[in-house]
Amino acid sequence: METKKIKINSNAQTPFNNKASFCVGTGRMNLALRHEYHNQLEKIQKDIHFSYIRGHGLFCDDMGVYHTYNVDGEEKIEFNFRYIDMVFDDYLSLGLKPFVEFGFMPKKLASGDQTIFYWKGNVTPPSDYDKWAELIKASVNHWIERYGLKEVSTWLFEVWNEPNLKGFWKNADMDEYFKLYDVTSRAVKSCDSILRVGGPSICGVDDERWLKCFLEYCSKSGAPLDFVTRHAYATEMPDVNGHYVYQKLRPPEVFLAELKISRGIIDSFPRYKGMDMHITEFNTSYSPLNPIHDTNLNAAYTARLLSEMGDTCASYSYWTFGDVFEEAGVSFTPFSGCFGLLANGMIPKPTFWAFEFFSKIGTDAIARNENFIITKNEKGGLAGIAWNPKEDSGGSDITLDFTFELENGDYSLVKKLVDENTCNPLKAWIDIGSPPYPGESQLKLLRETAQPRTATQRFQVTDKTLNINITLSANALIYFEIKKINPQTDRGFDPERVRGAVNA
Amino acid sequence: METKKIKINSNAQTPFNNKASFCVGTGRMNLALRHEYHNQLEKIQKDIHFSYIRGHGLFCDDMGVYHTYNVDGEEKIEFNFRYIDMVFDDYLSLGLKPFVEFGFMPKKLASGDQTIFYWKGNVTPPSDYDKWAELIKASVNHWIERYGLKEVSTWLFEVWNEPNLKGFWKNADMDEYFKLYDVTSRAVKSCDSILRVGGPSICGVDDERWLKCFLEYCSKSGAPLDFVTRHAYATEMPDVNGHYVYQKLRPPEVFLAELKISRGIIDSFPRYKGMDMHITEFNTSYSPLNPIHDTNLNAAYTARLLSEMGDTCASYSYWTFGDVFEEAGVSFTPFSGCFGLLANGMIPKPTFWAFEFFSKIGTDAIARNENFIITKNEKGGLAGIAWNPKEDSGGSDITLDFTFELENGDYSLVKKLVDENTCNPLKAWIDIGSPPYPGESQLKLLRETAQPRTATQRFQVTDKTLNINITLSANALIYFEIKKINPQTDRGFDPERVRGAVNA
Amino acid sequence: METKKIKINSNAQTPFNNKASFCVGTGRMNLALRHEYHNQLEKIQKDIHFSYIRGHGLFCDDMGVYHTYNVDGEEKIEFNFRYIDMVFDDYLSLGLKPFVEFGFMPKKLASGDQTIFYWKGNVTPPSDYDKWAELIKASVNHWIERYGLKEVSTWLFEVWNEPNLKGFWKNADMDEYFKLYDVTSRAVKSCDSILRVGGPSICGVDDERWLKCFLEYCSKSGAPLDFVTRHAYATEMPDVNGHYVYQKLRPPEVFLAELKISRGIIDSFPRYKGMDMHITEFNTSYSPLNPIHDTNLNAAYTARLLSEMGDTCASYSYWTFGDVFEEAGVSFTPFSGCFGLLANGMIPKPTFWAFEFFSKIGTDAIARNENFIITKNEKGGLAGIAWNPKEDSGGSDITLDFTFELENGDYSLVKKLVDENTCNPLKAWIDIGSPPYPGESQLKLLRETAQPRTATQRFQVTDKTLNINITLSANALIYFEIKKINPQTDRGFDPERVRGAVNA
Amino acid sequence: METKKIKINSNAQTPFNNKASFCVGTGRMNLALRHEYHNQLEKIQKDIHFSYIRGHGLFCDDMGVYHTYNVDGEEKIEFNFRYIDMVFDDYLSLGLKPFVEFGFMPKKLASGDQTIFYWKGNVTPPSDYDKWAELIKASVNHWIERYGLKEVSTWLFEVWNEPNLKGFWKNADMDEYFKLYDVTSRAVKSCDSILRVGGPSICGVDDERWLKCFLEYCSKSGAPLDFVTRHAYATEMPDVNGHYVYQKLRPPEVFLAELKISRGIIDSFPRYKGMDMHITEFNTSYSPLNPIHDTNLNAAYTARLLSEMGDTCASYSYWTFGDVFEEAGVSFTPFSGCFGLLANGMIPKPTFWAFEFFSKIGTDAIARNENFIITKNEKGGLAGIAWNPKEDSGGSDITLDFTFELENGDYSLVKKLVDENTCNPLKAWIDIGSPPYPGESQLKLLRETAQPRTATQRFQVTDKTLNINITLSANALIYFEIKKINPQTDRGFDPERVRGAVNA
Repeated sequence: METKKIKINSNAQTPFNNKASFCVGTGRMNLALRHEYHNQLEKIQKDIHFSYIRGHGLFCDDMGVYHTYNVDGEEKIEFNFRYIDMVFDDYLSLGLKPFVEFGFMPKKLASGDQTIFYWKGNVTPPSDYDKWAELIKASVNHWIERYGLKEVSTWLFEVWNEPNLKGFWKNADMDEYFKLYDVTSRAVKSCDSILRVGGPSICGVDDERWLKCFLEYCSKSGAPLDFVTRHAYATEMPDVNGHYVYQKLRPPEVFLAELKISRGIIDSFPRYKGMDMHITEFNTSYSPLNPIHDTNLNAAYTARLLSEMGDTCASYSYWTFGDVFEEAGVSFTPFSGCFGLLANGMIPKPTFWAFEFFSKIGTDAIARNENFIITKNEKGGLAGIAWNPKEDSGGSDITLDFTFELENGDYSLVKKLVDENTCNPLKAWIDIGSPPYPGESQLKLLRETAQPRTATQRFQVTDKTLNINITLSANALIYFEIKKINPQTDRGFDPERVRGAVNA
Repeated sequence: METKKIKINSNAQTPFNNKASFCVGTGRMNLALRHEYHNQLEKIQKDIHFSYIRGHGLFCDDMGVYHTYNVDGEEKIEFNFRYIDMVFDDYLSLGLKPFVEFGFMPKKLASGDQTIFYWKGNVTPPSDYDKWAELIKASVNHWIERYGLKEVSTWLFEVWNEPNLKGFWKNADMDEYFKLYDVTSRAVKSCDSILRVGGPSICGVDDERWLKCFLEYCSKSGAPLDFVTRHAYATEMPDVNGHYVYQKLRPPEVFLAELKISRGIIDSFPRYKGMDMHITEFNTSYSPLNPIHDTNLNAAYTARLLSEMGDTCASYSYWTFGDVFEEAGVSFTPFSGCFGLLANGMIPKPTFWAFEFFSKIGTDAIARNENFIITKNEKGGLAGIAWNPKEDSGGSDITLDFTFELENGDYSLVKKLVDENTCNPLKAWIDIGSPPYPGESQLKLLRETAQPRTATQRFQVTDKTLNINITLSANALIYFEIKKINPQTDRGFDPERVRGAVNA
Repeated sequence: METKKIKINSNAQTPFNNKASFCVGTGRMNLALRHEYHNQLEKIQKDIHFSYIRGHGLFCDDMGVYHTYNVDGEEKIEFNFRYIDMVFDDYLSLGLKPFVEFGFMPKKLASGDQTIFYWKGNVTPPSDYDKWAELIKASVNHWIERYGLKEVSTWLFEVWNEPNLKGFWKNADMDEYFKLYDVTSRAVKSCDSILRVGGPSICGVDDERWLKCFLEYCSKSGAPLDFVTRHAYATEMPDVNGHYVYQKLRPPEVFLAELKISRGIIDSFPRYKGMDMHITEFNTSYSPLNPIHDTNLNAAYTARLLSEMGDTCASYSYWTFGDVFEEAGVSFTPFSGCFGLLANGMIPKPTFWAFEFFSKIGTDAIARNENFIITKNEKGGLAGIAWNPKEDSGGSDITLDFTFELENGDYSLVKKLVDENTCNPLKAWIDIGSPPYPGESQLKLLRETAQPRTATQRFQVTDKTLNINITLSANALIYFEIKKINPQTDRGFDPERVRGAVNA
Repeated sequence: METKKIKINSNAQTPFNNKASFCVGTGRMNLALRHEYHNQLEKIQKDIHFSYIRGHGLFCDDMGVYHTYNVDGEEKIEFNFRYIDMVFDDYLSLGLKPFVEFGFMPKKLASGDQTIFYWKGNVTPPSDYDKWAELIKASVNHWIERYGLKEVSTWLFEVWNEPNLKGFWKNADMDEYFKLYDVTSRAVKSCDSILRVGGPSICGVDDERWLKCFLEYCSKSGAPLDFVTRHAYATEMPDVNGHYVYQKLRPPEVFLAELKISRGIIDSFPRYKGMDMHITEFNTSYSPLNPIHDTNLNAAYTARLLSEMGDTCASYSYWTFGDVFEEAGVSFTPFSGCFGLLANGMIPKPTFWAFEFFSKIGTDAIARNENFIITKNEKGGLAGIAWNPKEDSGGSDITLDFTFELENGDYSLVKKLVDENTCNPLKAWIDIGSPPYPGESQLKLLRETAQPRTATQRFQVTDKTLNINITLSANALIYFEIKKINPQTDRGFDPERVRGAVNA
């Protein structure tokens, strides 16, 4: 066991751009019509309340948007926004704004047959860019009419997804993407110039070249650009076995360094220096079949990322909030290695708590290192999060031995523990036989094993220092809160006379 | 630490008349109109689902039942069942049947002014027994009309409450009570002979004499009697301090012995031999101001009682389900030593879990001693509850070292732990400063500290024996479940390759 | 205006096999995962409470059931029941049992590429009947394991859908269907012989030949057959215009006569004489694009059918409960001529009320003709439904001039009126401009216009007859209830002194 | 039938200070703990959304606020805010702010025994004004601590209730009230000077003298005064019969004139000129036993008041939102003549709709007379309310023959009708036998009869004028909305081919 001694001055300040709750990813738009999806998102919003949501498939055929018919041999277009309305109405009712991703291509407007995923998103350029622009404008204008310009002006619009991958954009054709970007961004602005549009939504493959070329293109062509977007995942090459994929994690430092390079490229363009860079997708693994997503390791590793990504990024959107997701087909079990913070059956995974904890600590940080962050929270107390990611078996515990400089008085400590012993529903599911189709009583049990253990203590500070030890087992994630209290005792109540009311 | 070795044969049988969920007590009827009351009872029914509910105050003036007016100088009676309807409608909608307690006396029908409690229940005999009989008949007939005879014939009717105490019945006048019983029981039967009525609802003061005389009275007078009722509390004399009362517990054996004496008295009457004895109230302390009710000790002690009371009793009704209760006035804090399984703010107290656990284990017991009970549950597994009450400070741990004789195969173990460290909301409330008026975020925290810790394990049995140790700290209460499983592994899923998926 | 004088003897009896709430149709199984679907079905069950539900697409690829993979070059099958479980769990939680329709063909098991509908159900025979049998057995056994044999034995299993149409079954190949039926029905019975299976699920095209041949086939082959199924629609040839289809209705008598022929064919087989014939689909039009479904005409016409279909059929399942339906793609407006009792946006269509009314009148009929039915209801009153379908413009009113022979006393009359003026949300939607994407306030308004007008009256019967006129405008549908009452008047309440309390 | 021709210029302006939704009255504070109360208030807020709520009994003993105990013979005070917190928490969660009425007197602080109502509110002055001030300060400071000063500074504080009545204030002692006012208002301001306090909360008995003297007192003494309060009821002397009271209404003009006198008195004090006058209670009858409250007459009469009271008053609070009310005891029936907008059983009375309608029309009036008001509403349409109160039997209909000057184009008209035939639950209840204890199915029926009839029409304006007739039967209340629409017709949809889609 390693012990780290740390002194905390509650009046210090340290950088921390907490955007953990800014945006979250989702399975494709059509899935947003699902009942389980709605219920999961409702829970997510109740506990974490993200501000934006982003997903694929807005214009896929299962959304029924783009239609043509013939009159006297001439093709006419007609639009149908019913399903998009249902999805966006639901988002807004849950306190979420769309981070709109324009894509993929309606079959009637596609130039080819290439599709991606089980659900067959067409990834070819439009056969007619004018009609594509018409689709963009009709959509944006419909939203302005339905929700008002004031509302829509707070949304963000992104052009396509990962065009630097052949799977997502035919031939990963850079020039074709720039054309798409140009047409799309101008179509958005033609609806109203205050609308915000960005790209290029690339992932970490050949990304430096793509980003430079994209910014050069915009710079020269004058294509509107309000923010830059990219993706970031933290795993090495996959090893496939049956339905599953296994990968090693890269060190967090390596992951974070990649973002700094992008940041640097943007800042190297005088015109774009300081421009917002949104990470419109991130996670450990980019595969919805990697069991790592269901582990405590994932939570501890992600917590570290959440504490530092804001140093370079305007936001970072975890991919995805729930396991209602079908890129690789219908999952065979409730713990299928999918991206979600919630497993199907409304079971919070450990990483759910990383986001729940970061949603509570605010932005006013006083101390941070590779294992913890501490902030002053709104109610005048201190709130901290600590983590200890250990991918390899074994892995020793760490104790953070904090000394807080505080006023004298009474204090309460609240601790919420998420670790491999205490809040590990994946293990619980395996322990009960890994049932592929758990019934309601099994799901209830799994939800119980997916709760942090909450414990409280009371301290008296008489010499302006409070010593608190936080011990982190391998892959533990801990939230803690220290608060000055003004103890009140009801007339005649004597805790000493009540068995168990005070610590033995 | 003490260790007890215990061998369990899953085909054995042991007596166990599990009536923990048969009936529960409640604050007075008028409180059943409250919003918080409804919400608490709804939670109770969702988790424990009692069959019956019993409380005081059916005919108190705040229920607005009994009225008189004058026509030409003559007094006429009119009844108003609106509030009773609201209460009983709500009970039935929550799956509860009334265990009707007839009392107390409407002021207009009372022979005196003596009242009990903050809410002033009149405890004097009727000024006119004919009018009392009219009240009883009008009520019962109203229920038959509203709910149908089939439904009402499943209810139970009890005459008055604790007439052997001067506080509850003027002068504790035995003959007067017998008269009341006679008139009331005959009034009930006059509505329909299949209705079930009983008494004498005495508490443990001079109870042997009262019970004998009562049975003699019924025997001689022919007053209808379908079951016998009494109360039982487990504490010594109170020591009052401010708003609170402190008492010592009697040993569980002493508590249980008292019930056996009553049982014996009943059985000594040939006519009543084997007749149901319902304990229409029981708890540790009879005071709503004793902090013991909020402790883990209370849960562990009660669990012991629940495992054995059925040996002598047809049922035993915990007094009460929640802290919406006003006998001693409005409580000053959420942990005020009141009777409820739920503290105000929807916080389960440790004893809540004793009932929740007993509601799940069924009735088919295979082993039992003073620290545990094990049953076969419906789903073919074994379910057990263990407890370790220690009133005095200190108190050593106990380990139950079980050896189960089982078929070979894979087994899962689920354990739910409620102890002074893990599930002790009273202590948590004190740790955060014992706020008298906690806000919603504090209540949420307290509810989190009031959940059992649920843990799972998997075992392989190869030699027909499974050894499991259950360690009970002082006042611990543990639920455990052992179940044969048929593990299924999805194609390609390898727990060994997933960090944290199996025990290190 | 036509007036019909009718004498009603409340002790008479008339045939009436009310199965209006036995079963209802639904959009394909995958849609049952939708949020709007769940909400609509919940409302339907709250108000009408059907017993069974039937729809297409159980084995379509979007349910993710049937998979194959290769091990050492050999194809292995694996099943995934997650989505089916979600659907059936939801049905059962809403009080519905599956009327299982086996179909269509998973792509991996299909012998061809032919598909039907926007959602591309594969309608070709299995490439391997043994694997198809394996799929059937795995499914049924999975349900027995999950829900218990007792539950599953109350379900009904039907083989395929409308094999007599080329669109639904490749080449409408009769022999191939009989093979499918044979294999499937035996597979079901192999799971447990008490399970009930039937066919041939034909529609009204060449149906007499199909039915005869099918029964001959079963008779000879010994294929298990527990009930016969067919479909019935009431419209003539379609006239297509844009998104819509217009058709004339056949007279109800013609519709009903067709069912009698089927009944006769069944009864002509001694082995099958009297066997249940379930109409597993019926409606006016078979097109989901015919605006008739949204009209009052549809309600009045359907009411007539509901009053008589039970004369020949064991049940008749209205196709469908709601407009979450995609056979012809995503509807462009909330009133798109789709089948549902509810329009999208939770708006009851007039026909919703036909079913709601029939769900309330019970089965104990005392009088019936082509315009009304009257029953004794459970609460001792009389309940009636009256209708006046008029397809052609104009159409005169009808007055049903009832004379009821009743005991003397006080009676209340409750009337619920659904007609083109009063409860006509289609017209209201047109009046407000037929918005394709109504917002919540417009939907609220439309729901208000979709409520029956409920009115009450009080009568005094002194000469053992009560005269009540029910006037039906064109396409009116009326529910009425006559009940003896025992008026109670609170002390001092004088309706004559209260403005508006009694009819002027 | 009378016809009134009215020309409406949509660009005109007319005075209209719409405060119908500013504040509403409630039964005493303790009733706010009830379940039915919560449910009724939730519905009220969903449909009408009042901003403030005011009721009696804040400090009555059933709220458990004020306690004393002795230490060494000395009396000490302790406060208990649990119940007040529960009530105010609930109000705030429902979007309501307290219009706090300080009163009545806790028994421990009272100088006498005089009480009012079934629930026995003590109406005597404090025995010790310092302790009263302590109670006020403790309460206000508790609210500031719990809800924040920012929130509490938006509340309004009123001193006592109707001190000009002997029943509400011992001897109606004016000087004693002024003393109470002085002490209380200064106590409030001592907590924070931005808090707003007012009085004298008088009813219309000797009110001119009281108001003048009160303002003189404040003026001289310097007692803080931020607003003036009074009450207003519209009925003559009562005629009592059994449980009921009958009264004649005064003409609305007389009712309104009384308020102008008060307004004039206030304005005659230079210091108070223009000061807000809040009518903290108003209704037709001041008796909770007058059936008028349940009638359509009450709705039509109240609508008239709502259209004009804002001319002199800052607000006017209808007494009360619901029938959970006990001043005269527990009501014997669901239509007991009580004050509420909702009858028990969640049945909207006609007057509910008057408030619902006024909550929707906004404040931008263009025309008004004694029978109607028309405003421009937010969505660019016109919204109107019309009424026709007729107390006497008979009473002829009125037709308002409106000519609107409008742009050419298509318009929709929506009408909601509440009249004695259409939306009259009192009559419906009588028709079904006036059951004192209706069951759920009867309540459902009554709720159905309590809905307005909503109808729509479409118009085309080609000559810049639209003629619309609104016919009001006796005691009718009508809401109507005229809105320019931009009709959209889906491709191929032809209303002429759809039976019932357009008016015959």
